[in-house]
Amino acid sequence: MTVIEAVRWAPDGTAVRIIDQRRLPGELVERDLRSVEEVCDAIRTLAVRGAPAIGVAGALGLAAALTAFGHEPADAFVRRLRDYASRIRATRPTAVNLPWAVDRLLARAEAAGPGASTGALLEALRSEATAVLDEDRAMCARIGDHGLPLVPDGARVLTHCNAGALATAGIGTALAPVYRAVEAGRRVEVYVDETRPLLQGSRLSAWELSRAGIPVTVLTDSMAASLMRAGRVDLCLVGADRIAANGDVANKIGTYAVAVAARHHGIPFYVAAPTSTFDAATPTGAEIEIEARDAGEVVRGFGPATAPDGVAVYNPAFDVTPAELVTAIVSDRGVHRAPYDFGVRGRKSYLRSVAVPQSPARR
Amino acid sequence: MTVIEAVRWAPDGTAVRIIDQRRLPGELVERDLRSVEEVCDAIRTLAVRGAPAIGVAGALGLAAALTAFGHEPADAFVRRLRDYASRIRATRPTAVNLPWAVDRLLARAEAAGPGASTGALLEALRSEATAVLDEDRAMCARIGDHGLPLVPDGARVLTHCNAGALATAGIGTALAPVYRAVEAGRRVEVYVDETRPLLQGSRLSAWELSRAGIPVTVLTDSMAASLMRAGRVDLCLVGADRIAANGDVANKIGTYAVAVAARHHGIPFYVAAPTSTFDAATPTGAEIEIEARDAGEVVRGFGPATAPDGVAVYNPAFDVTPAELVTAIVSDRGVHRAPYDFGVRGRKSYLRSVAVPQSPARR
Repeated sequence: MTVIEAVRWAPDGTAVRIIDQRRLPGELVERDLRSVEEVCDAIRTLAVRGAPAIGVAGALGLAAALTAFGHEPADAFVRRLRDYASRIRATRPTAVNLPWAVDRLLARAEAAGPGASTGALLEALRSEATAVLDEDRAMCARIGDHGLPLVPDGARVLTHCNAGALATAGIGTALAPVYRAVEAGRRVEVYVDETRPLLQGSRLSAWELSRAGIPVTVLTDSMAASLMRAGRVDLCLVGADRIAANGDVANKIGTYAVAVAARHHGIPFYVAAPTSTFDAATPTGAEIEIEARDAGEVVRGFGPATAPDGVAVYNPAFDVTPAELVTAIVSDRGVHRAPYDFGVRGRKSYLRSVAVPQSPARR
Repeated sequence: MTVIEAVRWAPDGTAVRIIDQRRLPGELVERDLRSVEEVCDAIRTLAVRGAPAIGVAGALGLAAALTAFGHEPADAFVRRLRDYASRIRATRPTAVNLPWAVDRLLARAEAAGPGASTGALLEALRSEATAVLDEDRAMCARIGDHGLPLVPDGARVLTHCNAGALATAGIGTALAPVYRAVEAGRRVEVYVDETRPLLQGSRLSAWELSRAGIPVTVLTDSMAASLMRAGRVDLCLVGADRIAANGDVANKIGTYAVAVAARHHGIPFYVAAPTSTFDAATPTGAEIEIEARDAGEVVRGFGPATAPDGVAVYNPAFDVTPAELVTAIVSDRGVHRAPYDFGVRGRKSYLRSVAVPQSPARR
């Protein structure tokens, strides 16, 4: 099984190579981003999407865009670095991973000291970008390892939206346990909610799973409950955009409906997400502000209007699934079960709800 | 408030006037069907849809198409009647109301006796077609009357698909209590699931409700559960394609998910449908065969493919909501509550679960 790689170095190391997600599921187009304009454009136009993938693309893209300027004097190079960094940061102002990744590179350049040569600075930036990439891959792999026991041989998994390889530089978050299970020789079948309004499930999750040779079936979001009633779903596995201290999960709109249906049918509902998603500052899901998005996404998503002019449209980007509907949360640190307590950052607080011990090498 | 009329006589009585539903929600186009070809074409191409509306269109259309042949000798006219009847019946072979309505006209012509003149036959056919139309309108009105107490002032109603005026010759089935409540001066707000894959909710229900001046909000099917959790839905009101003897309800795919979410949130879930939908011969929903429809409806419904080529698609046309999730069934005979027993046809069996007494005039 080969899992696609959404963001990586181009073979010659002078560009970041991405899968252009605007072309999916129609065709696989890879693009090498070399200039800062190409990097910014790709992030802004959603050619690369998914918080972890955007962060990695920003880091690799910043280092790649500076590669052609290794001949510049150090002071000019540092000015260019700051300019490029702020341009890349500005492409998606609300994404947390992007400024975080870019700031890591700036800090690394800072740490090199005022006397550092352009060559040394460039090397430091490339090395830091590679670290961001490697850490993201390792995070995905750990989620996959921790989630592996939840996906037995013969499992029929329902997922919603795309929290897969396309959203990260590695094997994804929600889909990581699926890929690991298939790698381990288990037969796994995945049902994918199309995920209205933007169809990330049918366009992206179905695409990357079928590329990996995993049997996948697309359904409209409204069919998931019937599928469960028919006894055809063994577990649900979804990602998270933010997890409150009490374990309430904000994720793509429609996730909550899946959780309610899973509970009604006695089917386990798992959330898989990196610990960077845990938001200690937010006590419960009630404090998570939900972005209301444009009506056009719902009623003009496919060209001609699918509702009469002027009709009101309800289009929240996310919903909140209360912790009591979540069977367990799989993170890069382990499998967390209720009572969740992510209120204090640091390993100690996480460990309170960690059920699966981790190897020291992984900590 | 004016409710649209989906099927009726054209003012001069020589044609059946329909709202062309293929043009909705973009524009209101009414078409007068005069020839048998026009009638068959309109039914076949879904210009008119919804089981009751199709039945009425078939009856009126058959009478209208024969109007131009009042000069023919009676035997030639009867041959033409039989030919037209079989052509109209053949347009939608699985719809029950269509052959039922056409057969009523044939039986009425038969009853006129072998010596009847062409003029008398034509008059009998027109009269029977008008009876089919009037009975359908009366059926809708009675459902509206019986359902009226369920829709209090200020009610926020969630509906799925279109079981409204566009699906009947009257004020609809599921939406009839809404129209009646608004007529009675109550403020009612309706949330409409867009209803994937064919979007009858956003295209049709939202259109007819907003034409009637009723506040309507469209949402994707996946948002209904969140809306309920936010405390913004007071009751659910949906139609039915078939109701088993034990009260299990087959309706448009996605209805079951609404029922599960309503139960989770303690929100009443009502089904409104004519007693002609009650299927005494089907003991439970498990015996209802669910039509599997084409994958293209899900993944090519809007032009470009929204899922990768060759991926499996789950696309059942209907789902079954078990009776235990149904708060009550509103029919033209009253409001039925559990334990449902529609197993024996005839008023006596229905009355076992009828809670609201009917006036003798309505029986």
